[in-house]
Amino acid sequence: MLNFEFCSPTKFVFGRGTQQEAGRLVREAGGTRALVVYGGGSVVRSGLLDQVLASLDAAGVAHVEMGGVKPNPRSDLVYEGIRLCRENGLDFLLAVGGGSVIDTAKAIGDGVPYDGDFWDFYSGKAVPKTALPVGCVLTIPAAGSEGSNSAVITQLDGNLKRGLNVELHRPRFAIMNPELTFTLPRYQLACGITDMMAHIMERYFTNTPDVALTDRLAEALLLSIIDAAPVALANSTDYESHATLMWAGTLAHNNSVGVGREQDWASHRIGHELSAKYDCAHGASLSVLFPAWMKYTYKHDVARFVRFATAVWGVETQGRSDEEIALAGIDALQSFFTSIGMPHTLAEVGGCEADIPTLARSVVDGKTGHFVELYPPQIEDVLRIAAKG
Amino acid sequence: MLNFEFCSPTKFVFGRGTQQEAGRLVREAGGTRALVVYGGGSVVRSGLLDQVLASLDAAGVAHVEMGGVKPNPRSDLVYEGIRLCRENGLDFLLAVGGGSVIDTAKAIGDGVPYDGDFWDFYSGKAVPKTALPVGCVLTIPAAGSEGSNSAVITQLDGNLKRGLNVELHRPRFAIMNPELTFTLPRYQLACGITDMMAHIMERYFTNTPDVALTDRLAEALLLSIIDAAPVALANSTDYESHATLMWAGTLAHNNSVGVGREQDWASHRIGHELSAKYDCAHGASLSVLFPAWMKYTYKHDVARFVRFATAVWGVETQGRSDEEIALAGIDALQSFFTSIGMPHTLAEVGGCEADIPTLARSVVDGKTGHFVELYPPQIEDVLRIAAKG
Repeated sequence: MLNFEFCSPTKFVFGRGTQQEAGRLVREAGGTRALVVYGGGSVVRSGLLDQVLASLDAAGVAHVEMGGVKPNPRSDLVYEGIRLCRENGLDFLLAVGGGSVIDTAKAIGDGVPYDGDFWDFYSGKAVPKTALPVGCVLTIPAAGSEGSNSAVITQLDGNLKRGLNVELHRPRFAIMNPELTFTLPRYQLACGITDMMAHIMERYFTNTPDVALTDRLAEALLLSIIDAAPVALANSTDYESHATLMWAGTLAHNNSVGVGREQDWASHRIGHELSAKYDCAHGASLSVLFPAWMKYTYKHDVARFVRFATAVWGVETQGRSDEEIALAGIDALQSFFTSIGMPHTLAEVGGCEADIPTLARSVVDGKTGHFVELYPPQIEDVLRIAAKG
Repeated sequence: MLNFEFCSPTKFVFGRGTQQEAGRLVREAGGTRALVVYGGGSVVRSGLLDQVLASLDAAGVAHVEMGGVKPNPRSDLVYEGIRLCRENGLDFLLAVGGGSVIDTAKAIGDGVPYDGDFWDFYSGKAVPKTALPVGCVLTIPAAGSEGSNSAVITQLDGNLKRGLNVELHRPRFAIMNPELTFTLPRYQLACGITDMMAHIMERYFTNTPDVALTDRLAEALLLSIIDAAPVALANSTDYESHATLMWAGTLAHNNSVGVGREQDWASHRIGHELSAKYDCAHGASLSVLFPAWMKYTYKHDVARFVRFATAVWGVETQGRSDEEIALAGIDALQSFFTSIGMPHTLAEVGGCEADIPTLARSVVDGKTGHFVELYPPQIEDVLRIAAKG
């Protein structure tokens, strides 16, 4: 186990009816004038936005609204939000939506007190020293942004998609009512399930020895997600399966299963290039890339893949070599993704083999991954496996 | 899954050498003048106290020391600490030790800004509205107080042992260096292992349906503790097993495995009466009581005890009835406690059958437990099973 620091200070308010607490929670966090950030029309149509605004009004929190955040959120709305905060003297960001909305709010929070361009933080030119506080009402279980230190923004020009992980990004509170996810389109829920599983697997595949405790916690989350996913997808109003997915999505990315271990993150990094170039769903990039990455890297530590196959997928071991067990585990993951309607080839997310060299070279820093370090030639190999599916 | 609020804001700084960070962390938490609370001579003899004080000096944090905290910490040192803080204008409590030291610091923190007697909070007469912040350097993996909202204090006169769970109690930071636990006496480590397992089991035995996610997380912790315990007890300098126990002890009691589910806590409540009356180790009261409580309650939900037996203890199911499997799981727990040197009868902690009616009546509120509600006659039955062992 490696030395680590872990702090997950977000107050999670979980369960039915909790959106009514928005005003109280903004107040408790010191907010008096909030920018309410949201995405498309669904939070308007469902009446959620009105409920949240009424709760702010009741608590005496002034507010300005900014809608229109899209998946793979772009920098233009971040600039717009920074402008709105400055012009109206706002002191709190309330995100109502999924990861894209929360990440947009985090990036606005980075930018408001900063004299320069907020993109400096995402391009690595500067590190934020302070930020406006963020709270959220979560509507999509997926990105884990409600409890994480991450934000990912795509530049409007240039298709650069970049993440920033800083402790300032942890939301002050996260309101999590599983009922708010009942109206999610099936495909969007499947993308979220893929994303949370990927967050766990990025941490699971490690070279750090003696990490059985976090291994077991990671396996517990994966097993619960694998059980809950088909139930939630088959029955859009089943509370318990949606609740399991929602809480598992948070634990998958607040780093509780990642402490004390080296983490990989190659699949996310390469995936970001796919969604930046083809504007495909983040989850779709991961269902394509993760099995391909596994097929490319499993020989690096067959025993770890055997553990993954048996502990997570219950792969039968009798009469099989370790390598066969490892590969059966990867197949089980890929079959699971297929069973929930996720793509498994580059072509399905709009890619083609001819783009592979460009994609591989666009990965930031020219290398990625810690379980196995990948440079552009190796990234090309992974993408070629993804092209075959 | 029940609605819940969960907030674990403590910054955990885990690993080798982390005691050197004490000064920086007090400063970051806003402390400038600290009361350093500790127990017996071991933190003095080992040089730990000097290292911590040097770190405070280097960070410009003024300090006053108060040693002498004993297991089942008493109210007299709480009053003394409150006096020292007020007289010296101290603004931070730094606990260097285990649960008793941290709980003493928490209770001092409750009392300093309060006009009345701090015991008002522990007797249920008042609720603290503010408290001095607490940080800690943990030396015993057991109570989980480093990340929990709990404190338990015993009145000097009257033998009343009472707990107070309030979010104000969560430490600002917890420094956790597993090497600091290498010098623990074997019995004290075994008591700590028992305590952390009990914290998990108090949450595991529940009537709340649809809690598979937290069930699995709880089982993951128990399995890791069961694996690490004999290694750590056999080799007092084995870093990884001590690290596993230390981190598992925190997760066992920061409520991450307890959210969204009704919890029991009868064994702890009755155990508090044993340690108040006989001054036995908290862990010893639990190794005696928990198996007895299980033998008394398992028929209430045999399926849950079957799950405990198979998922945690790997009990063989073939050719056995559910009841036999459940009982085999309880036996496995009791054998494990015996294997690490913990007592299993009332007599071993200084009790006798004649005291049972008095003990049962002394349990606060006249009833305890949620999995099964126990009133004095039922508590007597549990204690009689504990008397037999």
